[in-house]
Amino acid sequence: KWRGSIYKLLYREIIIFCVTYFILTLLYRCILTEEQKMISMLISAYVHGNDERGRIIRRSLVRYLSLLSVLTFQTLSTAVKKRFPSLDHLEEAGLMTKEERQAYEDIPGSHGKWWVPAQWFTSLVVRARREGRIKDDILLKTLLDELHVYRGNCGMLYSYDWISVPLVYTQVVTLAIYTYFLACVMGRQYLDLSKGYSGHKIDLYVPIFTILQFFFYMGWLKVAESLINPFGDDDDDFELNWCLDRNLVVSTLIVDEMFQRHPLLVKDQYWD
Amino acid sequence: KWRGSIYKLLYREIIIFCVTYFILTLLYRCILTEEQKMISMLISAYVHGNDERGRIIRRSLVRYLSLLSVLTFQTLSTAVKKRFPSLDHLEEAGLMTKEERQAYEDIPGSHGKWWVPAQWFTSLVVRARREGRIKDDILLKTLLDELHVYRGNCGMLYSYDWISVPLVYTQVVTLAIYTYFLACVMGRQYLDLSKGYSGHKIDLYVPIFTILQFFFYMGWLKVAESLINPFGDDDDDFELNWCLDRNLVVSTLIVDEMFQRHPLLVKDQYWD
Amino acid sequence: KWRGSIYKLLYREIIIFCVTYFILTLLYRCILTEEQKMISMLISAYVHGNDERGRIIRRSLVRYLSLLSVLTFQTLSTAVKKRFPSLDHLEEAGLMTKEERQAYEDIPGSHGKWWVPAQWFTSLVVRARREGRIKDDILLKTLLDELHVYRGNCGMLYSYDWISVPLVYTQVVTLAIYTYFLACVMGRQYLDLSKGYSGHKIDLYVPIFTILQFFFYMGWLKVAESLINPFGDDDDDFELNWCLDRNLVVSTLIVDEMFQRHPLLVKDQYWD
Amino acid sequence: KWRGSIYKLLYREIIIFCVTYFILTLLYRCILTEEQKMISMLISAYVHGNDERGRIIRRSLVRYLSLLSVLTFQTLSTAVKKRFPSLDHLEEAGLMTKEERQAYEDIPGSHGKWWVPAQWFTSLVVRARREGRIKDDILLKTLLDELHVYRGNCGMLYSYDWISVPLVYTQVVTLAIYTYFLACVMGRQYLDLSKGYSGHKIDLYVPIFTILQFFFYMGWLKVAESLINPFGDDDDDFELNWCLDRNLVVSTLIVDEMFQRHPLLVKDQYWD
Amino acid sequence: KWRGSIYKLLYREIIIFCVTYFILTLLYRCILTEEQKMISMLISAYVHGNDERGRIIRRSLVRYLSLLSVLTFQTLSTAVKKRFPSLDHLEEAGLMTKEERQAYEDIPGSHGKWWVPAQWFTSLVVRARREGRIKDDILLKTLLDELHVYRGNCGMLYSYDWISVPLVYTQVVTLAIYTYFLACVMGRQYLDLSKGYSGHKIDLYVPIFTILQFFFYMGWLKVAESLINPFGDDDDDFELNWCLDRNLVVSTLIVDEMFQRHPLLVKDQYWD
Repeated sequence: KWRGSIYKLLYREIIIFCVTYFILTLLYRCILTEEQKMISMLISAYVHGNDERGRIIRRSLVRYLSLLSVLTFQTLSTAVKKRFPSLDHLEEAGLMTKEERQAYEDIPGSHGKWWVPAQWFTSLVVRARREGRIKDDILLKTLLDELHVYRGNCGMLYSYDWISVPLVYTQVVTLAIYTYFLACVMGRQYLDLSKGYSGHKIDLYVPIFTILQFFFYMGWLKVAESLINPFGDDDDDFELNWCLDRNLVVSTLIVDEMFQRHPLLVKDQYWD
Repeated sequence: KWRGSIYKLLYREIIIFCVTYFILTLLYRCILTEEQKMISMLISAYVHGNDERGRIIRRSLVRYLSLLSVLTFQTLSTAVKKRFPSLDHLEEAGLMTKEERQAYEDIPGSHGKWWVPAQWFTSLVVRARREGRIKDDILLKTLLDELHVYRGNCGMLYSYDWISVPLVYTQVVTLAIYTYFLACVMGRQYLDLSKGYSGHKIDLYVPIFTILQFFFYMGWLKVAESLINPFGDDDDDFELNWCLDRNLVVSTLIVDEMFQRHPLLVKDQYWD
Repeated sequence: KWRGSIYKLLYREIIIFCVTYFILTLLYRCILTEEQKMISMLISAYVHGNDERGRIIRRSLVRYLSLLSVLTFQTLSTAVKKRFPSLDHLEEAGLMTKEERQAYEDIPGSHGKWWVPAQWFTSLVVRARREGRIKDDILLKTLLDELHVYRGNCGMLYSYDWISVPLVYTQVVTLAIYTYFLACVMGRQYLDLSKGYSGHKIDLYVPIFTILQFFFYMGWLKVAESLINPFGDDDDDFELNWCLDRNLVVSTLIVDEMFQRHPLLVKDQYWD
Repeated sequence: KWRGSIYKLLYREIIIFCVTYFILTLLYRCILTEEQKMISMLISAYVHGNDERGRIIRRSLVRYLSLLSVLTFQTLSTAVKKRFPSLDHLEEAGLMTKEERQAYEDIPGSHGKWWVPAQWFTSLVVRARREGRIKDDILLKTLLDELHVYRGNCGMLYSYDWISVPLVYTQVVTLAIYTYFLACVMGRQYLDLSKGYSGHKIDLYVPIFTILQFFFYMGWLKVAESLINPFGDDDDDFELNWCLDRNLVVSTLIVDEMFQRHPLLVKDQYWD
Repeated sequence: KWRGSIYKLLYREIIIFCVTYFILTLLYRCILTEEQKMISMLISAYVHGNDERGRIIRRSLVRYLSLLSVLTFQTLSTAVKKRFPSLDHLEEAGLMTKEERQAYEDIPGSHGKWWVPAQWFTSLVVRARREGRIKDDILLKTLLDELHVYRGNCGMLYSYDWISVPLVYTQVVTLAIYTYFLACVMGRQYLDLSKGYSGHKIDLYVPIFTILQFFFYMGWLKVAESLINPFGDDDDDFELNWCLDRNLVVSTLIVDEMFQRHPLLVKDQYWD
């Protein structure tokens, strides 16, 4: 009875936890992607200037966003860490220029500096406002507001990892499940039917239900474990790297090639 | 006892899931509809100019919104896909002009381009601001904010499909229910009453409760399955296509015929 | 055992559902009331002009809000429908002028036009801005934002009715409860005590617990049913009509008699 | 079995209800306090002018906020009602001036007028904007936005009382618990052990578990009842009155003595 | 049966409570940290001026934020209280200047003054606007909005402590658990197997399950207790103090050394 209690409890909790975590994580990635696209559209709308400097500013701004997300995911995902083990690799991949790398290294402290590109973004937007490329203070404010939503999401991911709630959770669950099966091994031995214990009328020489349970729960546990480290699974990580790459490509497309361009305006089919 | 546990669990979960999903989906569609109406009203209020160009701009803006939602639903709903299998059909239906189709095809990549009309919307609004049809930067900002809420909802729908949470869920549920009935077939055979097993005092030659359960659960499963693919059911899809059509008609009505017009102002009945 | 399961399930669900629905509905009505008061205060603050035209504009604006809510509730509540069966009655009640009725009827389509007063509101506010009665574009934007929250709530109510979630829910619940009692009638017959079935040691000639249950559950069902149609109950509807009336009276009071007036400023009691 | 079901249900629900209600209520009071402080800071920042009229305006504005919350709590809390049974008492306590009382009484209707100070606040802020004491329309808008959040919270409290959800809830709970104990009195009589009813092997001459239950549940009920009327308990009410008083004092301090004053700016300890 | 009920209830509740509280608390600290970083970036972007006075203003603003959080945590955390037992220690640590301490002490009242730095922040920002260091009223508004989110979070923490919900909760839980084990000691004595009480077929000379339960529940209780006072644990407190220190260092870095500076703009790797 007692064992059943803890096990029923864990069962439900594991499902709730996994589903929550799974949805949350996947949505998170999408949210970052969607947000980057959105800020790019705003940059494209608000930061005027078709000259070279204008283009550099817009391209740098979206690059800072990508850099910000890569620096955050470096601490979360072993795959991203594997791809960009050092600043050299970020520089080679074109996410940082030489100057930016120098500036990044000049900031005192060796970690917890993932927010630095956000500060560069802020400064560059203020500069663009001062140069008159952004026409109004309210548009400046809008860009910074959106940046801070983006940065806030990165910060949340970073904190989530730092707290390592899932780690504690997995340990508790793992302990509980192993303990439960240990108890099973002792508690579900063959009972001598002739003694007539109540509730043990039918005996099974092969404990098939216990075995089914074993596979079932071990399966859940494995799923749980793999979900708990959502940025560590290989296939997933590949996808995450792909996601980060694509974000930079699409963002640059939006602020550069598609900059304030729209198809020729003609009367539509239902004009009158 | 064990089987009862999983089955009770699934029962409740299936209900919660279905209801949530059902409400969510339907509300979603309504939310898109409501939002499109709202943005149309804002366009009607903020984008001035009674000349032909003004009319074209306003009509193009709301058409981009409809195009955005159709492109999103193409990936979600087989009915929308069936109605608009290619860009040709979108052009024929008047959702895209020739120029727009050309511009859309010029964007590199073959899928994941549903957000392009949002970028056109952005560019066109910026153009309208530069031409002085929008009087203030804060109104420009408002239009783009609303666009991004709309686009964000489309993106969420798109991501939801991409994650295919419901797919995994349905598979787990289906497996569990079939397993359960398999166990029933074995476990609920006639028991020889004369042996006096406890809890089996009364026997039934026809297992009516099991049969009732069977219909009941199969029913739930069918309902669940049809809900899980909310954009695939035929009647529903018809409705969705109708919904998308109506959105375009109402939006165009708002920005064109009803553009900044209101009934003559007269004193009301309770004037003093 | 099986019957107990479904019945325990429904029991809890019915309570959760009812309470949620009840609170939701009542709050909804209050929210609309509160919002209308709030928009009226903003109109009073932002739409200047003590002349007759200023007064007409302000009074028309709040009338449009009342009209919007009445048109929405017409589809939801039989009592509101009973009071205003046609546009004639709205005109007579002073909610619409002759011109507005004409304009409303000129909109193509016979239903789904409840949002039209919102468009009039938008146009009228834009007109007031152009006439300089609203001093700044940000205040124009604020008024339209508030309108769209109000309109959004009306739209949500309208969609809620259209989805008719509660209808499906009530049918399922009703079916389940009647099925349960049918099973009771069969399953709880007198048992011959002398046969010594376990769990049936004491017999009751009158099944008082079943009867109690009967009244109890029938009671819940009735309560549920009346709550499910929250805008159909007579007393309630009377109250709803009263609520709609009062909203118009208070709103007109705020934008007209109390227009930008406050008590004479004097030093308060604790001045130094 | 049946009785156990309802009683387990109520047990859990009562706890959930109480905790929710308790936290909600207390937070509510704090939220009103925090908000009033916050609006006071904004008034201090945005409403310029060191002259006497400037001071009167600022002091009147915060007084209107206090008046608004006192008028709301009058309908909720017997203690506040006891302290301020009439408008005379509000005038004596310095919450209203003679002029304000006159204006308040001139509004038609005898109750449901708690929102009037919000309208005065609105008008006075618009006046301050017209006199140039508020420099920009966006700051005017900010003050009115904050006012409406504050007023909205008051309105929610007012509606909450009007709906009297807790009242219905308490009655249902009370009825259920009394019914349960009545059933206990009948159902748990001494059983003749010699008859060997299953589940009644050990008899108790004194029904200590039933007695324990009795005290336990009666205790919960009392706690529930006192929580359900959170503004009616004497100690609590004293605290609420103290809270309302302190809000006025602190707000006046912020807008008057601390008006746009900050300590002398000097280099901090870590200057270089 | 009865005892099992309360104990199952408590079990689940304790877990839910602990997890909620734990996550909430840790996130809270992160949120304050993230917010302070964000406001610092905004100060860096909006408060112009490279001269000494400009630097002093920016540094003072972020110092006020740190001071605000330290004053709030003083009432919550024994470790922060231990580190800063009096205003002298705050002055020595460089969080307050002599002038600020004087101003703080001049405010009437001895406690509940933690919000004073927020008022200084407000006044100083208004001063910066008047000196033209902040270019637009909308930026002034933005800074104050962010301040009030920050202050609101501090206020929530302060209220949370003041309500002392957890205290009541712990007492109830502790009482219930001890009562439960007392009942166990009496209820689980050795039963004479020869009497053949149902459900007691197998006897245990050493009550190992009860002992296991004992350790298990005592463990949960200890965990719960330590979590309930999340700011009182020594290791944690050390971390909190470290956190507060780092916040000041990073904020000052952002508004001073990194003030409106970004790396040299060059063409990125994918320029064409």
